[in-house]
Amino acid sequence: MKDTNCGYCMGGELLSAFGIPICELSVSSLILFKEQSHPGRCIVAYKDHVSEIVNISEEERNAFFADVARAAKAIHAAFHPDKVNYGAYGDTGCHLHMHLVPKYKDEYEWGGVFAMNPGRTLLTDGQYAEMIEKIRANL
Amino acid sequence: MKDTNCGYCMGGELLSAFGIPICELSVSSLILFKEQSHPGRCIVAYKDHVSEIVNISEEERNAFFADVARAAKAIHAAFHPDKVNYGAYGDTGCHLHMHLVPKYKDEYEWGGVFAMNPGRTLLTDGQYAEMIEKIRANL
Repeated sequence: MKDTNCGYCMGGELLSAFGIPICELSVSSLILFKEQSHPGRCIVAYKDHVSEIVNISEEERNAFFADVARAAKAIHAAFHPDKVNYGAYGDTGCHLHMHLVPKYKDEYEWGGVFAMNPGRTLLTDGQYAEMIEKIRANL
Repeated sequence: MKDTNCGYCMGGELLSAFGIPICELSVSSLILFKEQSHPGRCIVAYKDHVSEIVNISEEERNAFFADVARAAKAIHAAFHPDKVNYGAYGDTGCHLHMHLVPKYKDEYEWGGVFAMNPGRTLLTDGQYAEMIEKIRANL
């Protein structure tokens, strides 16, 4: 089932408001987050419009977190953050997705949580393409 | 391996600074977060002092997220939040754990992320005990 107001379901302009598709994983899509205050920040979005991990089967949950771990390993390999943070919120949306936010020692938001969208760092199309290439190469 | 500065490894006063043990799950401990601005907020802490989900095997990761899902279902059943948020940070610590933060429509921090520790709502021992009993009954 799809929700016509949901960027993860519909792609296109609804998605491009905040993200750029990188590739499909086993049961999810890997998306580069346009706001790049944390270099390498991505989203792993589940294939279906379900609210939370409590709403999917054990098999689907295992596949989803295999995708999350695969993406996180690629981010580590491509950008060498000191930590990756993982967050799933979506109070007002209902499409299971997880933010993967690389943190760098003593850099922006190090030692705390991360803002949903700090709105401070956008890149050029060329810079996004380069970043996506680096992630793909490490998947 | 244990880290003697880590509340999740050592328990005791280091843990009681912020949490109250509820029970052991398959590969983790379920802990009530003392700061209860979000009624039912808990932590699921992995059994070992490892940094992230990328540092454990697929089997261990599946077991960990089975514990997370079990705890989240218990929180849903006990407190009926409109959403549970899931966050793993720990930039300056290295013990894999996930915050499970129940959100309630139009209440505190609804629609956004959640603070690591807003430091605004502590309960009495009796209230904590009652909350723990409710969670246990729904596990």
